[in-house]
Amino acid sequence: MAIEVDETRFVETMKEQAEIGGTDGGGLHRLALSDEDAEIRAWFADQVSEAGLELTVDEFGNMFGYREGTDPDAGTILVGSHLDSQPYGGIYDGAMGVVAALELVRALNDEGIETRHPIEIVNWTNEEGSRFQPAMQGSGVWAGEHDIETEYAKTDADGEVFEEELERIGYKGDVPAEPQRDYDSYLELHIEQGPYLEENDADVGIVTGIVGFTWGAITFHGEADHSGPTPMHYRSDALVAAADVITQIRRIPDTLGERTVGTTGYIDAKPNSINIIPEEVTFTWGFRDPDEAVIEEARARVLAEAEATAEREGVNWEYEDRMWTDPVRFADGCVDAVELATEELGYDGMRIFSGAGHDATHTHKVMDTGMVFSVSEDGKSHSEDEYTSWDDCYKAANTLANAAYELATE
Amino acid sequence: MAIEVDETRFVETMKEQAEIGGTDGGGLHRLALSDEDAEIRAWFADQVSEAGLELTVDEFGNMFGYREGTDPDAGTILVGSHLDSQPYGGIYDGAMGVVAALELVRALNDEGIETRHPIEIVNWTNEEGSRFQPAMQGSGVWAGEHDIETEYAKTDADGEVFEEELERIGYKGDVPAEPQRDYDSYLELHIEQGPYLEENDADVGIVTGIVGFTWGAITFHGEADHSGPTPMHYRSDALVAAADVITQIRRIPDTLGERTVGTTGYIDAKPNSINIIPEEVTFTWGFRDPDEAVIEEARARVLAEAEATAEREGVNWEYEDRMWTDPVRFADGCVDAVELATEELGYDGMRIFSGAGHDATHTHKVMDTGMVFSVSEDGKSHSEDEYTSWDDCYKAANTLANAAYELATE
Repeated sequence: MAIEVDETRFVETMKEQAEIGGTDGGGLHRLALSDEDAEIRAWFADQVSEAGLELTVDEFGNMFGYREGTDPDAGTILVGSHLDSQPYGGIYDGAMGVVAALELVRALNDEGIETRHPIEIVNWTNEEGSRFQPAMQGSGVWAGEHDIETEYAKTDADGEVFEEELERIGYKGDVPAEPQRDYDSYLELHIEQGPYLEENDADVGIVTGIVGFTWGAITFHGEADHSGPTPMHYRSDALVAAADVITQIRRIPDTLGERTVGTTGYIDAKPNSINIIPEEVTFTWGFRDPDEAVIEEARARVLAEAEATAEREGVNWEYEDRMWTDPVRFADGCVDAVELATEELGYDGMRIFSGAGHDATHTHKVMDTGMVFSVSEDGKSHSEDEYTSWDDCYKAANTLANAAYELATE
Repeated sequence: MAIEVDETRFVETMKEQAEIGGTDGGGLHRLALSDEDAEIRAWFADQVSEAGLELTVDEFGNMFGYREGTDPDAGTILVGSHLDSQPYGGIYDGAMGVVAALELVRALNDEGIETRHPIEIVNWTNEEGSRFQPAMQGSGVWAGEHDIETEYAKTDADGEVFEEELERIGYKGDVPAEPQRDYDSYLELHIEQGPYLEENDADVGIVTGIVGFTWGAITFHGEADHSGPTPMHYRSDALVAAADVITQIRRIPDTLGERTVGTTGYIDAKPNSINIIPEEVTFTWGFRDPDEAVIEEARARVLAEAEATAEREGVNWEYEDRMWTDPVRFADGCVDAVELATEELGYDGMRIFSGAGHDATHTHKVMDTGMVFSVSEDGKSHSEDEYTSWDDCYKAANTLANAAYELATE
């Protein structure tokens, strides 16, 4: 009962999309609502129409291609990802999930297969969040997680307004940005963006959920004295305090869980002069884990470290929570469908938690959701060095197609 | 044989100078070659003339007021400091040394005292180095430590050129910026800018030298991966490496010497985004000590820490030496003259090493040099909070006057 994606056409289609916004370094520069985004959207619209799908574009630019099912009462199976990229991203991140969804439909068309459930493919607007924040913006608005007027008003670094840019590229549709059908399930293929599949010699990742995370910022307030005549024991050095906590943020994950990660990505010191003891330093924390209790504990520990450090270094401190996302656990039906597909195809599938957020984070609020991961060599992503062999790409695409087919025929 | 500074006039003169460029916060905003600098220079020129001194301004803006001695073969005793300030500095830093030099001359004039050695008072150009780098620029050019054309070409943050600004304010003189006389000794009064005198209940500091220092910068090169799916053991985090070394820079002084200090004043992280593992981080080191061997050891240890950290965190590293200054040991004759003055005046003098550089650093290359420190409450300087009681100011000024008188009559 397995269907088969045409490997040659799939690879050709992947290469075709990679030419739009392609960089000299072999990656993509296809920021949301840029001219390159307009071009890839037009390309996608053509593919959708050529595949005989009904194209709709919603008022937030999310693009859908609908294929009818045989049972008018069966919920739609939604399959897709995003075509926008990081400033210098790879050619797989997002795009492969959309191309694989297209190839699923083409495989069904080739064999003249009708499915009980309708199948719809989707290209979500602005998943990357590089030009306009937040990331996963289009799926977030669609799932009711964000207010559309607030997101329309967002501006990029040059002050360009989201809504105006969406209109400029011609993709502000008429359909409300919210579920327009009765949906059954959502499936998304994405590169792992981590090294676990490669490390475990797995062919394909059966994604069981998405880690949650806590983001926040700590500011230490010390005293800006002259770095020469101020004895060490007179100092209230905000940067020394920050350094101590950053070292702890590196260590906290190892005390908590196998999949816990902790990062300080941002630091700002004032007055930032070689000859002056730093007066004020702000830096961020970020912890992720599949388990909500672990994330809470990591947050509690970094705040305890900050308090102890402030006392030790004689500085004042404050903190600000920036973001919190609960871990997502995907629906058994979706996870099982992906696992069944890998078994039928004879692939070595590995159950894995996603370390990064995806549009699936938001669709999970609306319907049963699952994901397929392809291998990411060396775990690299958000970089032109991002790489997955065509063989690994194909296995993931074939897995997605069969899992979606399984759900669509149930 | 003691002379006596007029305390009332000294305090009045201090208050008078503090009105030029005075800030609402009770400090000074009198950057080198600014309009405020022009105003304080005009004020100083008036005081010099009124005191019957011969005014000269050299081609780098250093201002001198000369008082003849009785012995044509006796070398000149130079006394002074600087009238420029930090952007929001205190009213004592620099200015008190110039006012005290003026009061020395006035005290001699009041009593009709002639000295064997000529006495010359000086206001050095741009000691602070806030607007144009380096600090101690005027005395450095004068002592032959810096090339005048190089320093003329320096620009401030707005691109204004030093030489043009010096001409604009009308203080580019005709006299070469180099010693024009046979000098015997240089004495400078300055606030301590550290807490040692206050901590030891001393009245006045008998400065025996100036600490040397090493300045440099270390850059770690890691990899900018996604902060979510990248496991801790896959990371090459340049900021974690920097944090570890900054913590060590805090600790190295305690392992070396009683007066050793170590500081990281500057840090810059790239790409500096909450969700990306830092790829490149540059930060500075600064170590000071009275002993050259200790400074060398501190520099060697921070580089050893950087190497060990780079290995541990899997990052590459490089470093750059930014500045090195040998410790200065003042001439016995000058130190003894200051000590003798405190004894004659009944003040509790304390021998102390300066933790900060001063114009005396440069004059030391040209002639015997000594310094007098006043108490700095809480050790604060380069801040509007800088404070010394008028009583402590007066004791330091009186000490300077008597030490200079001692040297001038020898």
